Amino acid sequence: MSAPVEIICVGTELLIGKTLNTNAYWLAKRITTLGLNVRRVTVTADDIDEISDMLQEVIQRKPHFIITTGGLGPTFDDKTLEGIAKGLNCKVKINDAALKMIKKTYSKYMEEKLIDKVELTPPRVKMAKLPEGAKPLPNPVGTAPAVLIEHKSITIVALPGVPSEMEAIFDEFVAPLLKKAAGNATFFETSLYALGIMESVIAPLIDQVMHDNPYVYIKSHPSREGEQKPRLELHLTTTAKDLKLAKNRVGKALIEITELVQQKGGKTMSSGKVKEA
Amino acid sequence: MSAPVEIICVGTELLIGKTLNTNAYWLAKRITTLGLNVRRVTVTADDIDEISDMLQEVIQRKPHFIITTGGLGPTFDDKTLEGIAKGLNCKVKINDAALKMIKKTYSKYMEEKLIDKVELTPPRVKMAKLPEGAKPLPNPVGTAPAVLIEHKSITIVALPGVPSEMEAIFDEFVAPLLKKAAGNATFFETSLYALGIMESVIAPLIDQVMHDNPYVYIKSHPSREGEQKPRLELHLTTTAKDLKLAKNRVGKALIEITELVQQKGGKTMSSGKVKEA
Repeated sequence: MSAPVEIICVGTELLIGKTLNTNAYWLAKRITTLGLNVRRVTVTADDIDEISDMLQEVIQRKPHFIITTGGLGPTFDDKTLEGIAKGLNCKVKINDAALKMIKKTYSKYMEEKLIDKVELTPPRVKMAKLPEGAKPLPNPVGTAPAVLIEHKSITIVALPGVPSEMEAIFDEFVAPLLKKAAGNATFFETSLYALGIMESVIAPLIDQVMHDNPYVYIKSHPSREGEQKPRLELHLTTTAKDLKLAKNRVGKALIEITELVQQKGGKTMSSGKVKEA
Repeated sequence: MSAPVEIICVGTELLIGKTLNTNAYWLAKRITTLGLNVRRVTVTADDIDEISDMLQEVIQRKPHFIITTGGLGPTFDDKTLEGIAKGLNCKVKINDAALKMIKKTYSKYMEEKLIDKVELTPPRVKMAKLPEGAKPLPNPVGTAPAVLIEHKSITIVALPGVPSEMEAIFDEFVAPLLKKAAGNATFFETSLYALGIMESVIAPLIDQVMHDNPYVYIKSHPSREGEQKPRLELHLTTTAKDLKLAKNRVGKALIEITELVQQKGGKTMSSGKVKEA
């Protein structure tokens, strides 16, 4: 089984419906593609106790990685690191390497004439206050460093919430760690579209194919274009120890479900990706 | 304090990054606007034990409402109702009212010549298997009924995952329940844009204004257009016992933060909504 990962998104803006959680979507796709298994995504408010409680709950489920996004900046509502520290029963303290990164970024801002002088004000120093034992990861796009913590057998990574910053740090520092944990494990997916056949008719066919292909997960996604034209996407996925095996497995299941749908009078339409399989 | 709500999204497609979770966003916005407080959003896989465990965890936090989306359809991977039943230590059994709704929908499909006859096959009957004591809510758009369960002081509502179905059922049956629980509580929000001032400079100003206006939450959202033009959205929100009070509170905080930003040499730009306040 592929290594389990949990994602924690911190931000009241996600809970009041101000911001669509594209970070969770982006991370889930990247982590899955790297061959790991996202078990849960949890969204919480900017609140130290909520973050701390949630972290402790997640730790009890012992994922290999916990990835948080949001709450690393200079304002009062950036509480992720304090929440993590509380959850790990440690304190935040100024991390010299993090402070150096922040100073460097503000020096760059001064060179760009965005600021007159490099002042390490309390809100700026706040971004260098990491849980004890944590390691900062440089932020090539913004100011707040990301944070890496090894807690027992779990790697905790705290990423910023600004998508461009999160993505850059993930790709540079986090993806290699995940890839290493995944080994050669590879995720493979393809879709088949079934037309003119209802989901309730396809249900037992999927059961049969999944029974015959225990490593392939098939999920139907209805997208009727009016009730007159039932149109179902059948999404086939697997994670296997290498790409060849993954493709073979999905390919076999794909052929079987295609034949069954056609036997029931449904038409099938392949997606571009199917041809690869 | 406004009534707490938790959202549970069920669907492996959300955890592998196939589907962007627009349902959580839509629900969070609607629930907040109705005057309630979304405490957490959790996303889980199509797995009975995961759903059951998660439900039990959420119940321990005693929200007034738990709203789930996804997993009500006819296929094997639609496991929400079995997961809820397990979490509540009860069984699923065929609910006559739900079966009647499903029969009615397939009769309509027959009239529309989508099917030849109304057959209540096992996958179709599956959609009528509700946790004991649950009440079905008709689905005006699709086939699977939604489900309402009163569990001690918590109202649990299971909605389908297809957005058009979820939204229609929410608006017709769930919004009135939430509105009643919220009483006259009203959410009010507005935004102010601050230009030419860094987030680390604005941070202590926000602290001060939030200290002076304890019921108003102010969150800064950076959206630099290149490092040359720092541009911050300051989002002010409150939930108060009526709209007049909510607007007064936000208006007072808005004036204060505007003055402070300008004193620091920043420019401010109102959003359309600000004028209302």
